[in-house]
Amino acid sequence: MTTADLDQRCIDTLRTLAIDAIQRANSGHPGLPLGAAPMAYVLWQQHLRHDPSDPSWFNRDRFVLSAGHGSMLLYALLHLTGYELPMDEIQRFRQWGSKTPGHPEWGLTPGVEATTGPLGQGAANAVGMALAERHLAQRFNRPGHEIVDHYTYALISDGDVMEGVAAEAASLAGHLGLGKLICLYDDNDVTLDGPASLAFSEDVGQRYQAYGWHVHRVEAGDTDPAAIDAAIAAAKAERDRPSLILVRTTIGYGSPAKAGTAAAHGSPLGEAEVAATKSALGWEAEAQFLVPDQVAAHMGAARTRGAEARQAWQAAVDAYAQAHPDLAAAFRACLAGDLPAGWDAELPSWEVGAQVATRSAASKVQQVIAAKVPWLFGGDADLGCSTKTLIAGGGDFDRTGAGRNLHFGVREHAMGAICNGMHYHGGVRPYASTFFVFSDYMRPAVRLAALNHQPVIYVWTHDSIGVGEDGPTHQPVEHLMSLRAMPHLDVVRPADAVEAADAWRYAMARSEGPTALVLSRQNLPVLDRAEAGPGDLGRGAYVLADVPAGADIDAILIATGSEVSLAVAARALLGADGIAARVVSMPCWEQFARQSAEYRDSVLPPAVTARVAVEAGVSLGWATWVGLGGRALGLDRFGASAPGEVLMREFGFTPERVAGAVRELLGR
Amino acid sequence: MTTADLDQRCIDTLRTLAIDAIQRANSGHPGLPLGAAPMAYVLWQQHLRHDPSDPSWFNRDRFVLSAGHGSMLLYALLHLTGYELPMDEIQRFRQWGSKTPGHPEWGLTPGVEATTGPLGQGAANAVGMALAERHLAQRFNRPGHEIVDHYTYALISDGDVMEGVAAEAASLAGHLGLGKLICLYDDNDVTLDGPASLAFSEDVGQRYQAYGWHVHRVEAGDTDPAAIDAAIAAAKAERDRPSLILVRTTIGYGSPAKAGTAAAHGSPLGEAEVAATKSALGWEAEAQFLVPDQVAAHMGAARTRGAEARQAWQAAVDAYAQAHPDLAAAFRACLAGDLPAGWDAELPSWEVGAQVATRSAASKVQQVIAAKVPWLFGGDADLGCSTKTLIAGGGDFDRTGAGRNLHFGVREHAMGAICNGMHYHGGVRPYASTFFVFSDYMRPAVRLAALNHQPVIYVWTHDSIGVGEDGPTHQPVEHLMSLRAMPHLDVVRPADAVEAADAWRYAMARSEGPTALVLSRQNLPVLDRAEAGPGDLGRGAYVLADVPAGADIDAILIATGSEVSLAVAARALLGADGIAARVVSMPCWEQFARQSAEYRDSVLPPAVTARVAVEAGVSLGWATWVGLGGRALGLDRFGASAPGEVLMREFGFTPERVAGAVRELLGR
Repeated sequence: MTTADLDQRCIDTLRTLAIDAIQRANSGHPGLPLGAAPMAYVLWQQHLRHDPSDPSWFNRDRFVLSAGHGSMLLYALLHLTGYELPMDEIQRFRQWGSKTPGHPEWGLTPGVEATTGPLGQGAANAVGMALAERHLAQRFNRPGHEIVDHYTYALISDGDVMEGVAAEAASLAGHLGLGKLICLYDDNDVTLDGPASLAFSEDVGQRYQAYGWHVHRVEAGDTDPAAIDAAIAAAKAERDRPSLILVRTTIGYGSPAKAGTAAAHGSPLGEAEVAATKSALGWEAEAQFLVPDQVAAHMGAARTRGAEARQAWQAAVDAYAQAHPDLAAAFRACLAGDLPAGWDAELPSWEVGAQVATRSAASKVQQVIAAKVPWLFGGDADLGCSTKTLIAGGGDFDRTGAGRNLHFGVREHAMGAICNGMHYHGGVRPYASTFFVFSDYMRPAVRLAALNHQPVIYVWTHDSIGVGEDGPTHQPVEHLMSLRAMPHLDVVRPADAVEAADAWRYAMARSEGPTALVLSRQNLPVLDRAEAGPGDLGRGAYVLADVPAGADIDAILIATGSEVSLAVAARALLGADGIAARVVSMPCWEQFARQSAEYRDSVLPPAVTARVAVEAGVSLGWATWVGLGGRALGLDRFGASAPGEVLMREFGFTPERVAGAVRELLGR
Repeated sequence: MTTADLDQRCIDTLRTLAIDAIQRANSGHPGLPLGAAPMAYVLWQQHLRHDPSDPSWFNRDRFVLSAGHGSMLLYALLHLTGYELPMDEIQRFRQWGSKTPGHPEWGLTPGVEATTGPLGQGAANAVGMALAERHLAQRFNRPGHEIVDHYTYALISDGDVMEGVAAEAASLAGHLGLGKLICLYDDNDVTLDGPASLAFSEDVGQRYQAYGWHVHRVEAGDTDPAAIDAAIAAAKAERDRPSLILVRTTIGYGSPAKAGTAAAHGSPLGEAEVAATKSALGWEAEAQFLVPDQVAAHMGAARTRGAEARQAWQAAVDAYAQAHPDLAAAFRACLAGDLPAGWDAELPSWEVGAQVATRSAASKVQQVIAAKVPWLFGGDADLGCSTKTLIAGGGDFDRTGAGRNLHFGVREHAMGAICNGMHYHGGVRPYASTFFVFSDYMRPAVRLAALNHQPVIYVWTHDSIGVGEDGPTHQPVEHLMSLRAMPHLDVVRPADAVEAADAWRYAMARSEGPTALVLSRQNLPVLDRAEAGPGDLGRGAYVLADVPAGADIDAILIATGSEVSLAVAARALLGADGIAARVVSMPCWEQFARQSAEYRDSVLPPAVTARVAVEAGVSLGWATWVGLGGRALGLDRFGASAPGEVLMREFGFTPERVAGAVRELLGR
C-alpha cells in the first residue's frame, strides 16, 4: 500500500467510524466528520504533538474541536491514536454513562481539551490556551530552555465564524499576535437550515486579515492532504500572527445522496446511505466499525511518538531545573496550582464603621493575593479602572510584554470564553472582571465554566441600583438570582470589606467550580461583628447580629451585600420598640445550602417564621429562606437613573421600611 | 456671521451643553459629545429627515446613538432641534424623575429611538430598523409611491465595534445589502481604561469591507464638517451596501488637559477644566448652558423642515391610498398593529391523548396566525428546521426577496438585538427562535426588550433534558428560572398542544413586554382538561385535574410543560391509594402572580400545605409556590447525553417518584 493509499485509508476509517457510530446512536452530525476528516487526519498524523498515553502532558499541542457537533470525528481520532477510548465507547456514542457524549465534554473523555457545542466557544477557548501558553513561555522560558512551547489548534465551522464571541476572540488574538494559534476553518458553505448563503456571504479571509491574522487557503480540502499539510506547515512557520486556514470542503463528503447539502448536517445518514457512502468511498459496504490493521498501526504510532516527545520534554525540564532551580520550582508551583502556605496571612483588615466599597476592599485583597500567587492571571473588559482589578505593577500583557494585566477590550463574552481556555490550558488561575450587569454578555461562557467545574473567578462590580446615575441599563436587578440558578457557580455578595476579603479567600480556595464576587460600587460601612467574627462567610450565611442573650428571637432579618447594613439598622429600630431581631448575613446561598441541617437550623431556627429578607434585586427565590409566611423586600422592576442613595430611598431600601415589614408580620 | 462660523457655534453649543450638564450632575461622559459633536451636527442639520414636533412620524430617518454613554450629545441635539425636551430637563441630567437619564431610554424621552448603553446593542438595533424599513418598502412601495423610504443612522464607538453582537449584526447587514443603513464610527482610539491600543488594533474599515460594506473615511472629524457632509452624502448615494464612515476624532476635543485621553471618557471634566475647555473653544468661559439665539434659530428650524417633510409624506400616503386602497389599508393595519378580528378563530385543535411536541403544535398555530397577521415578521438563528418557526410559503428575506422568513444565521445575540430594532422601527411584530439553551447568547438583548416593554416573541424550543442525546451543552436547566427573574418578561412553558396554542394566543395579545414560548422537542400527550377547558393559560395557572367532587384536597401537584403529564400520572397513582391530589398546570408564573389573591387562593388553597412541584429544571424559586413545607422536584445539576426518555427516568422524573414525594409529605 502506498503512503497515499494508507493516508486515504486512515481518513476513510475516521469517516466510517463516525457514520457508523452516528447510525447506531440514530442521532448525531455526520456532515462534519465526512468533510473534515482529511484536515483532521493530516493535523493529527503529521503535526499534532501529543501523547495519548498521558493526555495531561503539559507541553502537548492543544486541539479544540470548536465545531463540537462533529464530536465523532474527535472520538475517532482519540480512539485510533491510542487514547483510553476503546471501541465499545465508540459504539455507545450518545448513550447514558458513555464517554462519548453528543458534544465533547472536558473532564469526561481523555484527550478532549474543551467542552464544545455551543458555537464560537471553542474558537475563543483556543485563544485562551494560546494566550496562557505565551504568558507562561514569557515567564519561564530561558535561552536554550524552551520548556513551554506548543501550538494550539482549533477546528472551526461556519457557525463558529458567525458567532460574535469568536469574532471578539479573533480580534484580540490578532491584536496580541498569538502566532502559535492555528485555526482550520471547515469552509463548507452549509449550515443546519441550508446553504450558508441564506445568511452568510462575507469574505472570512479578509476579515481575519483585518484582525491581523495570517490567512491561508486550501481549495481541495476533501482530496488534497498534501495541500493541507503545506498550509499547516506554513502556519506553524508564521510566529508573529495567528493563522487561519480556510479549507474548502464538502459537507457529508462521500454520501451520494446528501453530500453538499444540509441533509448531511445534523441527522444520521440512514442505513442505506451509510452503505452507499462506504461504497462511494471504496470502503467495505457491509463492514461496521472497521479499523483496518494497517490503519490501527499507522495512527496508533502516535503513542510511541508522543511518549518520546514527552520524555524529551521531561529531560529538558530536568535540565532547566539544573540551570534555573528557582524558576523550575516556580514553574512546578504554577502547574500544581496549590495555594502556597501563608497565601492569605496578610490580607488587610478594616476599622469597624469605616466606609469602604466592597470593590475597593476586594481590590486591596486581590493585590495581596496576587503577590503570593503569581499564577493568578486575568483582566477586565475595559473597566479595570472601575472594577479595580488591575494588579499594581503587574504590567500589561500585550504583543511583547510579559505583564499580568490582560486587557480583553470591550469583549465580555470572549473574556469569559478565553478564561475558560486559559484554565483548560493550565498553569494559570484565571479571573475576569466587568460590571455585574454585563455578566449577561458572558453568560454562555460562564455556563460552560460551571458545567466543567472550572474555578474561574469573576469579579463583577457595580452590583445593584447603587450604581446610581448610569441608570437601568447599568443596574443589575435580576442577575443575582439568575446566576444563583446556575449549577456549580457560587455567587458571593459580601456585605462589607471584611466579607469582601473572605470572599476572595473563598474563591481562591474553591476548586469545584467558578465563583462570582459581586461587589458594590458605593461605600458600605464595615460592620461590627463582635458576635460572629470573620470567617463565617465560608459557611455561606451566619448570624451577624443576634438578639440579646437569653431573649427569644421575634424575627429574623436576612440580607446580602449592601442590604446587610440596612438590616442592622432596622434591627436597631426594632430593638428600640422591644422587638428582638436577629440579622443573618447570607453572602453565598450555595454554600449555605451545602451546610448541615443543624447549622442551617441554628442560623434560621425553623420555629421563627417571622422572616424578612432584603436584597436590592428581584425577590424571586427568597421564599427559599423566608417561606410563604415571610416577606422578601426586593426590587421587582428595573432601576432608574439618579444618585444611588436617592434610588435606594425611592425604591424603599430604608431601615424604616424593613422594620415596618417585621412589625407587619408580627402584628405589632 | 458666516455659515461656517454659525456651524461652529452650533457644534460648540452641543459641546458646552453636554459638559455643563455633566458637570452639574457631577456624573457622565464628556469625551464623546466633545469629539462627536461635529459629525452629529452635520448629520442632524444637513441630512436627518425628522420632525421634532412629531417624534413618531413613521417615515422619519432613524438615528441611534449606540454609544449611549454619550447621551448628553443626543439630549442636546433633541433640545436644540425642538423636541419636547426643555432646558430644565437638560439641567436635571441623570436625576430622579428627569427625562435625561444617564443612558438614553426609549419610551421615556421624545426622539430617543433606542435604549442604549450596553455596547453593541444600538449598532445591531440599527440593522433591525433598516431591515424593517426594507421589508415594509418591499411590501408596500409601488412605482411612484415610495411611502416607506428613510435612512437609518447610527453613531458607534470603539466599544461598539469591539462587541460581538455588533459584528454579527454588521455581517448580516452586509449580507442583506442594507444600503440605507449608515454608521458613523467615532474613531477616537481611546476607551475607558486608556488607549484603545491596549486591546484593539484591527483594521476596522477592512473588516467592514469584508462584510460587504461601503467604507468611507473622514480624517479630520473634529474640524472638518464639510468632509463629514461629503461622506454622508456619498453613503446615502450608495444604495446596495450599508455604509461605515470612519470619522477620526479626538475624545474630549477642546479640553486642554484631557483631550485625547481616557480621563475625558467617563468622568466630568471638573469645573476649572470646563471653563478652560470653553475658553479653548472660543466660548464664553463663564456662561452656563448657553444657547446663542442664532444657534437656537438655526437648529430650531428643524421643526419647520420636519413638519413640511411629514406633510409631504402624508400627501404621498393619501395619493397612495387613492391609487392602491387595499394596500393602503394593509399598510395602516401594519402601522397600528392591532390584531384583526378573528385572528385566532381558526387555531388548530388536537385529540386528547395524541402525542405532539409543543414545538410542533406551536408551529401549526404560528402558521395560522401568520396568515392572519401579515406583520408578524421574524426568523431563527439557523435552527428554523428544528424550532419549526419557518412560515410556510413565506419566502426568504434576502438581498432581493420580500420574503417573511428571516435567516439570522448562527448569530443569536444579533438576532435578539435586531428584533428589538425592528420593533423600535414599527410596522412589524418581531419574533426570534433558537434552542432554549441558547437564550443565554441573546440575554443582553432580551433584557433590553424587557426594560423597554417591547413585545418581541421568543420561540425557544428543546426546553429541557428532554433534548436527549445532544447532551448538557444543549440542555437548559437553569434557564426557566433565570428568565423568570427578569422583570417584564413573561415565560410561558405549555404542557401540551392545547396550551401551546394558548401560549401563542397569549404572546400575540400581550403588549406590555416580551414573551418567551418555551417548547418541548419531544412529544407530549394532549391532556384531558374536561374540568378546566382551554383558555385558562391566560391566568397563568389553573386546576387541570382536581380531586373527586366533595373530597378534601390532600395534596397539590404543580408542574409546567412536559412535567404536567407526569403530575397527572402521579395523581392517578395517588388516587389508587386513596390520596386525593389536585394537579395545577402553571405555564406562566408571571401572569399567575398578577391574578387576584382570590383566584390564586382558589388554585392553591392556603390550607393545603402538602404541595409538590415538579419541573425539569433547577428547583430554586419553587418555594414561592410550595413554601418551606413543600417539595420541589427539579434538576439541580446539569444534564447528560442519552436518549431523552432515559434521562427523564435516570434523573427521577417519574410518576412514582412524584407520588412518593407526596406520600412522604403526608406521612402516608
